[in-house]
Amino acid sequence: MTEHLSTWVEIPKDSDFTIYNLPYGIFSTANHSPRAGVAIGEYIVDLFFVCEKGLLEGVINDSTVFNKAFLNDFISLGKDTWSKLRNKLIELLSDSNSKLFQLKSEALVAQKDATMHLPVQIGDYTDFYSSIEHATNVGKMFRDPENALLPNWKHIPVGYHGRSSSIVVSGTDIHRPKGQTKPNDSEVPIFSASRLLDFELEMAFVVGKSTKLGEAVSTKDAEGHIFGMVLFNDWSARDIQKWEYVPLGPFLGKNFGSSMSPWIVTLEALEPFRVDSPKQDPKVLPYLEYEGKKGFDISLEVYIKPENSEETKVCTSNFKYMYWNMAQQLAHHTVNGCNVNVGDVMASGTISGKEKHEFGSMLELSWGGKNTIPLKDGSERKFLQDNDTVIMKGHAQKEEIRVGFGEVRSKILPAK
Amino acid sequence: MTEHLSTWVEIPKDSDFTIYNLPYGIFSTANHSPRAGVAIGEYIVDLFFVCEKGLLEGVINDSTVFNKAFLNDFISLGKDTWSKLRNKLIELLSDSNSKLFQLKSEALVAQKDATMHLPVQIGDYTDFYSSIEHATNVGKMFRDPENALLPNWKHIPVGYHGRSSSIVVSGTDIHRPKGQTKPNDSEVPIFSASRLLDFELEMAFVVGKSTKLGEAVSTKDAEGHIFGMVLFNDWSARDIQKWEYVPLGPFLGKNFGSSMSPWIVTLEALEPFRVDSPKQDPKVLPYLEYEGKKGFDISLEVYIKPENSEETKVCTSNFKYMYWNMAQQLAHHTVNGCNVNVGDVMASGTISGKEKHEFGSMLELSWGGKNTIPLKDGSERKFLQDNDTVIMKGHAQKEEIRVGFGEVRSKILPAK
Repeated sequence: MTEHLSTWVEIPKDSDFTIYNLPYGIFSTANHSPRAGVAIGEYIVDLFFVCEKGLLEGVINDSTVFNKAFLNDFISLGKDTWSKLRNKLIELLSDSNSKLFQLKSEALVAQKDATMHLPVQIGDYTDFYSSIEHATNVGKMFRDPENALLPNWKHIPVGYHGRSSSIVVSGTDIHRPKGQTKPNDSEVPIFSASRLLDFELEMAFVVGKSTKLGEAVSTKDAEGHIFGMVLFNDWSARDIQKWEYVPLGPFLGKNFGSSMSPWIVTLEALEPFRVDSPKQDPKVLPYLEYEGKKGFDISLEVYIKPENSEETKVCTSNFKYMYWNMAQQLAHHTVNGCNVNVGDVMASGTISGKEKHEFGSMLELSWGGKNTIPLKDGSERKFLQDNDTVIMKGHAQKEEIRVGFGEVRSKILPAK
Repeated sequence: MTEHLSTWVEIPKDSDFTIYNLPYGIFSTANHSPRAGVAIGEYIVDLFFVCEKGLLEGVINDSTVFNKAFLNDFISLGKDTWSKLRNKLIELLSDSNSKLFQLKSEALVAQKDATMHLPVQIGDYTDFYSSIEHATNVGKMFRDPENALLPNWKHIPVGYHGRSSSIVVSGTDIHRPKGQTKPNDSEVPIFSASRLLDFELEMAFVVGKSTKLGEAVSTKDAEGHIFGMVLFNDWSARDIQKWEYVPLGPFLGKNFGSSMSPWIVTLEALEPFRVDSPKQDPKVLPYLEYEGKKGFDISLEVYIKPENSEETKVCTSNFKYMYWNMAQQLAHHTVNGCNVNVGDVMASGTISGKEKHEFGSMLELSWGGKNTIPLKDGSERKFLQDNDTVIMKGHAQKEEIRVGFGEVRSKILPAK
């Protein structure tokens, strides 16, 4: 992957979608219903068209896997096929004598002419809580500043099941949720629109290989079960969450919507960006031990854009801060025999760094509403206001190699 | 529904599957792959066959909805169609001059010759915690005997998201899960097979009508979104659960498997058994208020059958004890705009009664392992042992009208 690659497609400076990336998504146009594509520069390679024309011969001969509303069937073909297809696409996009070049006016669709859709049918969605900085911040605010981390936190990649039905693709607006809360100044709970609406800066991985009930996946094998990654905004209504979450965890404070970016960046594209994860002390149990670099250096940013105004960057973080890595998360998730399926989504939990500008939620940035975050238009925020658009971006870069995630962008509409 | 019904099918005494019931399931035989059927006595009406032969003309003309591995497509046809099909089946099964009678050798399949399958494709699974007796018992054991219920319990039908992938049909064996626990006598967590494996006696409803993201369902409309009910065993590894569940709720202590009965009993079949639910004090918030009888008088039993021995009844309870009813659960679940889909499963939480023999889990029956439960073979249990089979049964009866759920039966295999 460190070899130099080039392409005949014009790639704008700082494009997330270089020849090194080739992420998968589901798009539609005025002319056809949702189907699979790969992003390159400002274009999408129409995989169904390309396969129909025989350009993927020897890799994938049955084009129907690409003529679907979700990537699940393609992903189910397995890691070897993903890799072969990647190599074939690099070949076709590099060689200006390729048949793809000849067919480019039909095979390449401008992203501006396409609508992106949720890329996978998600059976189950799990949300972890794997950033030590985030868990510490939350613990300091809500529990004990001296004992911010709960006793299990350094032993278990803590996670919980979320709602898969309400995961939506970037660009889908979300209504401010209504619900039951118990304000500090009230003796009884009230029903109202959430007053403490928040984003959570997360990334998520998409499961690429199913397991059977009773089967555990080791940390060694775990990455073979991961297709790729996306940006993930785990919207949170802090006031609803606070009143409901003891003892069974977050529920209505979260399940009104979660937003993900449309392009799934494969683990293969992320290979150049592997880094060591934070040292884990105390030592983890053997089933959580791992070898090699399991962290990824991915720069993350969050912007808030008020209605009719420019956006302000409110947070800069990095996926490499994660205390628990994806291999550990998947090994833990399956160690009891819990089965996973292709298309399942497993999110990281809020990714915060040590510095104040690296906190991945308004809860942390405003420290529970004590501080205000100034925006460029002169307004301030403690939590999100109606008609605010939240934009999360992410990319990895190493010398000339840039692999980005695009963005996940969603607007908060007033409560219904 | 209180009118007297009869059928030409021989119905054994105390059969759960009377002419008043007509529950839906998915079955296969040596001759065909999974398809939809309705239980009657010791038989299954083959809905695909019956529809192909034109017997459901005017109700359902397209037989393909029945020739599927799941009931979702049929359920999506809507409540009016369920009701019309029920009336048509009653007509066909009552009249010994009907075409169904003439075709019975082919249209009726002996249950003993059929394999039952999971009846619905489950998008999301939610587990509530709606029995006040269960929540009180757990609170007394683990928190404060004087303040057993948490402050939110009487205001919110507390629930959490569970794992849909690991829900299996009755008859599927479950391996004892392994996982991380922290025994009281250990300073550090250990990894082992669960030593405190438990059942939870629950019922669950299957969502019959989808909603859109942002749409709330009122308590008044909620039952229109419910297709029917099943028995549900929410297996629980208490030691894994105890170490992991603070602060984000149950995860690996639950998601190694949940078992459901194969026959979905429709809400229409349960109409005669409506009863008042327990009085709710304090008064609930307006969005949780409801009118009419929303409880159902359904007798429930749990048996433990050790390997090569007879079963012992260890618990007798009733669904009517539920403090929060299904309409309230669904109204709460969607009040924030969370969308639900046909086939979603929402379980009640452990259904315990006031008396000690009515406790719906070994945790409560043995009071946290302090007491032993004697079995007929002379052995004793505090929690489940390897090769124990747990059988849950349920039925409603009012004079001659009996509507039963069959059973959910699963055996615990040793840890892998």
